[in-house]
Amino acid sequence: MKALKLSQILAISEGTANRDSDVIINEVSSLIDGNNHSISFLGNRRYISQIKDSKAGIILVDNDFDTAGFDRLFVSCEDPSASFTKIADHFAPPIIEYTPGIDSTAHIGQNTTIGENVYIGPGAIIMDGASIDDNSVICANAYVGHHVTIGAYSILYPNSAVRERCEVGQRVILHSSCVIGSDGFGFIPGKDGHKKIPQVGIVQLQDDVEVGSCTTIDRARFGKTIIGEGTKLDNLIQIGHNVIIGKHCFIVSLVAIAGSVQIGNFVTIAGQAGISGHLQIGDGCTIMGKAGVTRDLKPGEVVMGMPATSRREFIADRIQLRKISKLEKRLKELEDKFK
Amino acid sequence: MKALKLSQILAISEGTANRDSDVIINEVSSLIDGNNHSISFLGNRRYISQIKDSKAGIILVDNDFDTAGFDRLFVSCEDPSASFTKIADHFAPPIIEYTPGIDSTAHIGQNTTIGENVYIGPGAIIMDGASIDDNSVICANAYVGHHVTIGAYSILYPNSAVRERCEVGQRVILHSSCVIGSDGFGFIPGKDGHKKIPQVGIVQLQDDVEVGSCTTIDRARFGKTIIGEGTKLDNLIQIGHNVIIGKHCFIVSLVAIAGSVQIGNFVTIAGQAGISGHLQIGDGCTIMGKAGVTRDLKPGEVVMGMPATSRREFIADRIQLRKISKLEKRLKELEDKFK
Amino acid sequence: MKALKLSQILAISEGTANRDSDVIINEVSSLIDGNNHSISFLGNRRYISQIKDSKAGIILVDNDFDTAGFDRLFVSCEDPSASFTKIADHFAPPIIEYTPGIDSTAHIGQNTTIGENVYIGPGAIIMDGASIDDNSVICANAYVGHHVTIGAYSILYPNSAVRERCEVGQRVILHSSCVIGSDGFGFIPGKDGHKKIPQVGIVQLQDDVEVGSCTTIDRARFGKTIIGEGTKLDNLIQIGHNVIIGKHCFIVSLVAIAGSVQIGNFVTIAGQAGISGHLQIGDGCTIMGKAGVTRDLKPGEVVMGMPATSRREFIADRIQLRKISKLEKRLKELEDKFK
Repeated sequence: MKALKLSQILAISEGTANRDSDVIINEVSSLIDGNNHSISFLGNRRYISQIKDSKAGIILVDNDFDTAGFDRLFVSCEDPSASFTKIADHFAPPIIEYTPGIDSTAHIGQNTTIGENVYIGPGAIIMDGASIDDNSVICANAYVGHHVTIGAYSILYPNSAVRERCEVGQRVILHSSCVIGSDGFGFIPGKDGHKKIPQVGIVQLQDDVEVGSCTTIDRARFGKTIIGEGTKLDNLIQIGHNVIIGKHCFIVSLVAIAGSVQIGNFVTIAGQAGISGHLQIGDGCTIMGKAGVTRDLKPGEVVMGMPATSRREFIADRIQLRKISKLEKRLKELEDKFK
Repeated sequence: MKALKLSQILAISEGTANRDSDVIINEVSSLIDGNNHSISFLGNRRYISQIKDSKAGIILVDNDFDTAGFDRLFVSCEDPSASFTKIADHFAPPIIEYTPGIDSTAHIGQNTTIGENVYIGPGAIIMDGASIDDNSVICANAYVGHHVTIGAYSILYPNSAVRERCEVGQRVILHSSCVIGSDGFGFIPGKDGHKKIPQVGIVQLQDDVEVGSCTTIDRARFGKTIIGEGTKLDNLIQIGHNVIIGKHCFIVSLVAIAGSVQIGNFVTIAGQAGISGHLQIGDGCTIMGKAGVTRDLKPGEVVMGMPATSRREFIADRIQLRKISKLEKRLKELEDKFK
Repeated sequence: MKALKLSQILAISEGTANRDSDVIINEVSSLIDGNNHSISFLGNRRYISQIKDSKAGIILVDNDFDTAGFDRLFVSCEDPSASFTKIADHFAPPIIEYTPGIDSTAHIGQNTTIGENVYIGPGAIIMDGASIDDNSVICANAYVGHHVTIGAYSILYPNSAVRERCEVGQRVILHSSCVIGSDGFGFIPGKDGHKKIPQVGIVQLQDDVEVGSCTTIDRARFGKTIIGEGTKLDNLIQIGHNVIIGKHCFIVSLVAIAGSVQIGNFVTIAGQAGISGHLQIGDGCTIMGKAGVTRDLKPGEVVMGMPATSRREFIADRIQLRKISKLEKRLKELEDKFK
């Protein structure tokens, strides 16, 4: 039985209650989305106004929070967010298990190599010459192209696609409708039409990379487009051909990285930012949301705006703008004095 | 026979012609894309210059439009746009019918519940424990994950995917390659690599929601990511984990909404706008195209720019900027006076 | 045998070496990603610092480059980039061949027409009434809707989808997870919910169009959304309903084009730009990255910023902004003079 009594909540959170209760908790909720059998938490004082109308049976708060003045059941503890996470994990549904085996409707091409304990779901496609290492999961309708290699313990969610010859490391996660290895956007422009430049390289996803839904990573013109070990890509991101991204970066949704950009390690790129082609971004840089990067960045730079400048410069520009009406007033006073 | 004579056009539009004609109309067209058997309309005076070169057999105009000076056949009526829509619907091809039944190549898992009059197309996947209510359509190669529930009269277009346990309401439309319930983007950062935070919640799409092609909606860390009743999402939108969107909102393409944002009812968010994490957007707000919202919005606010400010403030800033060269000139005159 | 000796490299590049060598080259690489059996090139002097640490066995440079002072093997030639491309093509893996034939797991509907030498892969779906012309390739799990026509020599990559009645020309390339012909985003707003406007038109992709991964092109309200001959669309682009795009345009990733926009020929739209609804963009315009176009553009205009203005105006605004602090200083001096 998964339901928790107050005494069990107190034990998990190492907390104290502001009163006794025989409440039974059987799920977690946000403050605004609860019921008398759910537990919620105040993670940030800015949500304090939500306590009054919350229907949650128990609210976790930190030890400094003054529970007087609210007629409801609180559990005070050192770290409400961490305690809440533990309780959420207690209530979490069982993880979906993909029992190893190859579904009879999957397509398995010629000369493929399928490791031990691999799951290949209904309608999944493994083209000729592909290899899937041990303990990997290829979900329904996912596509593994010719001569692709998939490392151990990786998972391809439904409708994900890896085009021919690309290399996927170990423990890689590919979310639905992502596309690994589509053609780079390269043409020789012409007045009578543009000539396609063959894109004969590949994409290499190193170990522990995660690629979000509908994220697209183009294969190299030649050589490799590389996503370094441990880098995490959110949904709907475009990575151009021949881009090389280092280790342990975070890239948030709807970012566009143009061709041949090189990005260091531990770089963070926030949502909807863009980077022009052929630039070099140093280790540890932070590119803020919607920024448009048009020059190389030194290690550790923090940039915002379009074209992207340092945060200091961005804010200074805005302060300058606000000065204009004051300047105009002062100038008018001087002019009037000497009319 | 679907072709229409002038007399029939006059009847449908309750209009009058500037001359008689035995023209036969068998399709609708825009002004620039017609032929002598098509009918077009002038919906906006800014397109007036297109009349001269239009090849359309009949052009619908409003009663105030002066047809003299053009040597062509006009039908004047009260609302040309509405009349044109009626005629377009007359010529519309029959709607594609999906005859109820389960294709022999569909995958139907264990312990599924399939209602009356349901269509399940070739290659569609219904995983264990899923349930599809009456009159729904699951198109070819669509994916319905473990324990997902799909309400009555909903349609999943080809290649759409709903991951495990998500809840889809009645009359919901999911367009191709959309992804409902992929993992939220949550990690514990670390110097030796980032640790994935399990995303054990779900996505709930309430009744009458529409989700565009390649739009991605992440499942909650725990609890639910919620899209409220009647809300319409365009293509290529990112909705982060634990976002809660109210009823009857419009969200246009390429918008990014970061995790835990709460959005009220009847909010409009235009193309390529973004909202930072954990913000609260009041009922009836309008966020203009490309705006970047970085603070809570009160009900009814209209914002633009990055960072987003009121429209008034945004325009004021631009006017200030234009003043600078004038200020410089006036200052120079004063300086010269006292040299 | 594909490996190349120095003499063969000299022949292909019509170049000269700075010393003799018995090096054997068997792959191409970038400067930073090579080994002693790879050949690289210096395409741009800004990468000159990468030469020192490069492990490439041979580096192609132009005839003006001074090879003295580097202890490595150079081949000097007229156009290092072009020579490199020739050598890369020499080493390119064989193109994936899709042997004509219909896989037994493909779905072929009623009244379809399949031309000569067509490949239809495993799990591909051809709905009733569709027609595929000679020499086309429909990859695994791709979807061809009811009454769709696909011209000769076209390729639909895995998981691409073309909805009912759309027209695809000859030599068209559709990348994975693109969606052609999903419903336009059209509703009659209402206080009790928004009413969907039927989208009964189609999408027409003319000859030699290329559509990137996860790009979405909405069908017309009525009539046609048109992508003109030879136009190339990158990944993750949104094209709204009734948009008409001319011939030989380039549109880069994450661009949003709202409904009923008309775009001329040879227009370039860079990444993350957007165009508001119903605008007209003249032939040969260039819209820079992240620009937001809110007015019609005359032929040949080059615009940037949000709202988009001419490049000249955009830069002028930034220069003005930088003047403010100087103006303030000069004003202060005048004020002090007359205190």
